[in-house]
Amino acid sequence: MAETELKNKTLSSDDLKGLQIIPLGGLGEIGKNMMAIRYLDDIIVVDVGLGFPSEEHYGVDYILPNTDYLIKNQHLIRGIILTHGHEDHIGGINDFLRRFTKDLPPVYGTRLTLGLVEDKLSYKKLYSNVSLRVVQPRQRIQLGVFKVEFLKVCHSIADSVGLAIETPLGNIIHTGDFKFDPTPVDGELTDYYKFAEFGEKGVLLLMSDSTNVTRPGFTPSEKEVAPALINAIGTATNRVIVTTFASNIHRVQQIINISTKFNRKIALVGRSMERVTKKAIDMGYIKCKDAVFIKQTDIEHYKDNEITIITTGSQGEPMSVLTRIAKGEHKIVVSPGDTIIISAVPIPGNEKMVFNTINKLFSKGAEVIYEANRHLHVSGHASSEELKMMINLTKPKYFVPIHGESRHLIHHGELAQSLDIKKENIFIMDNGDVLEITPEKAEVVMKVPANKVLIDGSGIGFVEDDILRDRQVLSRDGVIFASVTITHDFKVASDPQLVSKGFIIQHDDQVFYKKGGQYLKDRLEKTLQEKSEIDIDQKICDIVSDYAFSATKRRPLIIPVTHLLD
Amino acid sequence: MAETELKNKTLSSDDLKGLQIIPLGGLGEIGKNMMAIRYLDDIIVVDVGLGFPSEEHYGVDYILPNTDYLIKNQHLIRGIILTHGHEDHIGGINDFLRRFTKDLPPVYGTRLTLGLVEDKLSYKKLYSNVSLRVVQPRQRIQLGVFKVEFLKVCHSIADSVGLAIETPLGNIIHTGDFKFDPTPVDGELTDYYKFAEFGEKGVLLLMSDSTNVTRPGFTPSEKEVAPALINAIGTATNRVIVTTFASNIHRVQQIINISTKFNRKIALVGRSMERVTKKAIDMGYIKCKDAVFIKQTDIEHYKDNEITIITTGSQGEPMSVLTRIAKGEHKIVVSPGDTIIISAVPIPGNEKMVFNTINKLFSKGAEVIYEANRHLHVSGHASSEELKMMINLTKPKYFVPIHGESRHLIHHGELAQSLDIKKENIFIMDNGDVLEITPEKAEVVMKVPANKVLIDGSGIGFVEDDILRDRQVLSRDGVIFASVTITHDFKVASDPQLVSKGFIIQHDDQVFYKKGGQYLKDRLEKTLQEKSEIDIDQKICDIVSDYAFSATKRRPLIIPVTHLLD
Repeated sequence: MAETELKNKTLSSDDLKGLQIIPLGGLGEIGKNMMAIRYLDDIIVVDVGLGFPSEEHYGVDYILPNTDYLIKNQHLIRGIILTHGHEDHIGGINDFLRRFTKDLPPVYGTRLTLGLVEDKLSYKKLYSNVSLRVVQPRQRIQLGVFKVEFLKVCHSIADSVGLAIETPLGNIIHTGDFKFDPTPVDGELTDYYKFAEFGEKGVLLLMSDSTNVTRPGFTPSEKEVAPALINAIGTATNRVIVTTFASNIHRVQQIINISTKFNRKIALVGRSMERVTKKAIDMGYIKCKDAVFIKQTDIEHYKDNEITIITTGSQGEPMSVLTRIAKGEHKIVVSPGDTIIISAVPIPGNEKMVFNTINKLFSKGAEVIYEANRHLHVSGHASSEELKMMINLTKPKYFVPIHGESRHLIHHGELAQSLDIKKENIFIMDNGDVLEITPEKAEVVMKVPANKVLIDGSGIGFVEDDILRDRQVLSRDGVIFASVTITHDFKVASDPQLVSKGFIIQHDDQVFYKKGGQYLKDRLEKTLQEKSEIDIDQKICDIVSDYAFSATKRRPLIIPVTHLLD
Repeated sequence: MAETELKNKTLSSDDLKGLQIIPLGGLGEIGKNMMAIRYLDDIIVVDVGLGFPSEEHYGVDYILPNTDYLIKNQHLIRGIILTHGHEDHIGGINDFLRRFTKDLPPVYGTRLTLGLVEDKLSYKKLYSNVSLRVVQPRQRIQLGVFKVEFLKVCHSIADSVGLAIETPLGNIIHTGDFKFDPTPVDGELTDYYKFAEFGEKGVLLLMSDSTNVTRPGFTPSEKEVAPALINAIGTATNRVIVTTFASNIHRVQQIINISTKFNRKIALVGRSMERVTKKAIDMGYIKCKDAVFIKQTDIEHYKDNEITIITTGSQGEPMSVLTRIAKGEHKIVVSPGDTIIISAVPIPGNEKMVFNTINKLFSKGAEVIYEANRHLHVSGHASSEELKMMINLTKPKYFVPIHGESRHLIHHGELAQSLDIKKENIFIMDNGDVLEITPEKAEVVMKVPANKVLIDGSGIGFVEDDILRDRQVLSRDGVIFASVTITHDFKVASDPQLVSKGFIIQHDDQVFYKKGGQYLKDRLEKTLQEKSEIDIDQKICDIVSDYAFSATKRRPLIIPVTHLLD
């Protein structure tokens, strides 16, 4: 079916024949993962993530999936299932739940995942209305026609699960984000047996994490960062500052263990690092009975070689602690001889920010230990050999690669083909595509809305495309404001005022603006006298824009304001 | 000497005792390479590069080194020496020469380098005044007290050289950008013998390219991309589109050779690809007597498997040909089955743009072949083992790592130390530092201006910091204009008009702006009546800013315009 036809088709109950797979986010992109699975009058939702803005999203704070389809069908939603506690899987939950006009569906997840969700909801005062239901790996729940079983997987946050979903047409496996870590820090292996058991029973559809499909081989175990951390912390002579993702609880656990072994006290600095780590300690996910924690304000009371600071900023984020330390804008001051360990790699797009921070820290005389080839970081996602293993364990009829940009999904599809999954049974889907599976066949039958919803500010609302376009022009060339007073006999009263911001000619360059005002007056009066009906605002824009362009070869935004004298 | 003291010191002739090394760009950064070398009344300038803007440089087109020090001392400049034809080494030449008020110094470089410079100068009509003097490798020229010898080096553009500079105090080696390619495409090896000969005679100071110091081992030979290109082009069934850096003449040569071997005609598409390649063919740097070149407009007249298109866009640059093809905004249309080869890797910061382009091309059904692990690209810069070799060949007394961010310079310094260069003889310098070498010692004795000069528009001028700050706010939160008419008795005449652009509340949301106008009128009149002397513009800003913030938690730029009625 051609794409335009798909778009114009809307769901009517006649269309509902089979099992429908409806990704709303995370396909063709990294982030804001969300998927609906529907069979007739039962819908389950897997993950409600958010995405992070790129350069072209001027002033946007975060990005949400479009949930119009689900809100329209809210009475059919039997439950929301969260695979793990990363923001790109749970970060959209507040905004989603707030849109419901009827009873909220229950939310299912493991203990840590729901612990993190609880913090979010209580902050937004939504907590009391929502039923959060903790599940264990291998537990099964019934949601409408669906039986959902939670399968333990390893990932860069504790308590992650994949899903086995029994449907009237067969079993679905949704891996969530995963890797096969042979030696996980908490000893909890990915549940090989259960994935294999479903493979043996028969899997109708596998949906599998594509993030690392371009990496050959196997992703190293989380434990493999230990030697590099031991070496770096063990040989440090002054203070140690370590940065990693706050949610990587097993990494933080290892940093605490190693620091404690070398008689260092731990200071957790940075809001998310404090919040997540304390939560993980409270809930028993981080074990640290021998560790000594101190407050940031007490750091000064100890010798430099007795301190490890664990903090945020591994991505060079402008407001993070490490970035502010590097800029000299934080209470913690780096001195020559301090050791700074960046136990992470830059997410694509963040390289420049990360290396800026590293350069600044080097300039302060610190020893900065960074980069993947120092074995200070491992990924939480399966590499290509592990992805092959997941396909071979589950032996699915249909395959839908998820969680990746187009190139990842396509490579993952090719990989499945190399394992003898039939080409016609592999679907490279876009967000919003509705894949319908019947006993006979599977095909994409229609589209639901799945555009990016751009959020600016604290709950104010959406950023429309024309606002982004204006901001883009403003950021490049600035703005000129033209204020014109027009008399009742269509003369321009005194000289119009031109004022600018962000324009290359400074607003104190009086000659440019004075001449511009005269030029505008002359041209505008001439036009007013020649023609009876004109769009005055548009005319002002044209005149001022031409004037600015002739002087600077730039086209700033022009804003006209006309006052009509009566 | 403390930094503040250095900054406050200016050059007087009393200070000029020894040999001075004055980097003006390329230290603590990648790009805009430029250096002055001075001995008493003789100055030579090595390279005049430009830099490319980052995200924080809103609307900036390119970045230049500050050349105030050189313009002030222009009568002492004996020559400008260019090591090779990359933009970060020659791109600032127009703007620099234009600043001279007295006779222009001669410009020295190899044939290809000056060929590329000539194009730039003739475009800007500067050509007739400048003496461009072509030099050969191993040629020696006398510039004041300096004897400069040009030493062949391999790099990702043909005709690159390093410099051996004899001075009254000893020999300086400046490597330019280089690698030791054991099998260069044109057969011209880096001049091991000459570097070694200077090492044997004695080198006072080595200044060496630090770009790839973090890479272990040796950088592969340019020839090593051939097998991957042969495989990709040889197995392609439809059209082939290859993108690489236009200046990488040897890469383009290989693409032409391999395409010709597989009976494909060549279309050069994209302004810089056409310009540089044609120049290189004209000058004999690209040899292609068997190749058949066709125009872009003739592509349609041939079968798909008879065509190779060589084009720009390897960095995902928004206006480049490949990016426009990917977006469907170019005459060349990609069809399923076409092969697209990206013979380059993203420069840090460009990853997202490059992967966006790749994803879009995949979505169009093309086979996209990319990434370093496919051996489709090699770097033009020496890796750590080669950098060690350069130090061991030249055995310098003093060492200054150049061409790199702080982290690169520091790592390169550590590497030199590991080869028994004394720690106190290694100088990690900033742009603007003046390193003075006397027979007794070397030390940084003062600073000259070396800030970034940000250029916006076609020759209009500089972008000041406050313009950038305004653009940053504009790009995030937009702008509100408040136009207020005040009567002679300090009343506000009618309601003030508020107009916005790029602000989260759309300009057609009349209620917000109407209420805002009333609010502004009330608050402003109250203030005007209470106080006799106030800054009306500032007051308007405060009132409108508070009004916007209370509604949106955002602080757009506010521009007040007041009309006083008489």
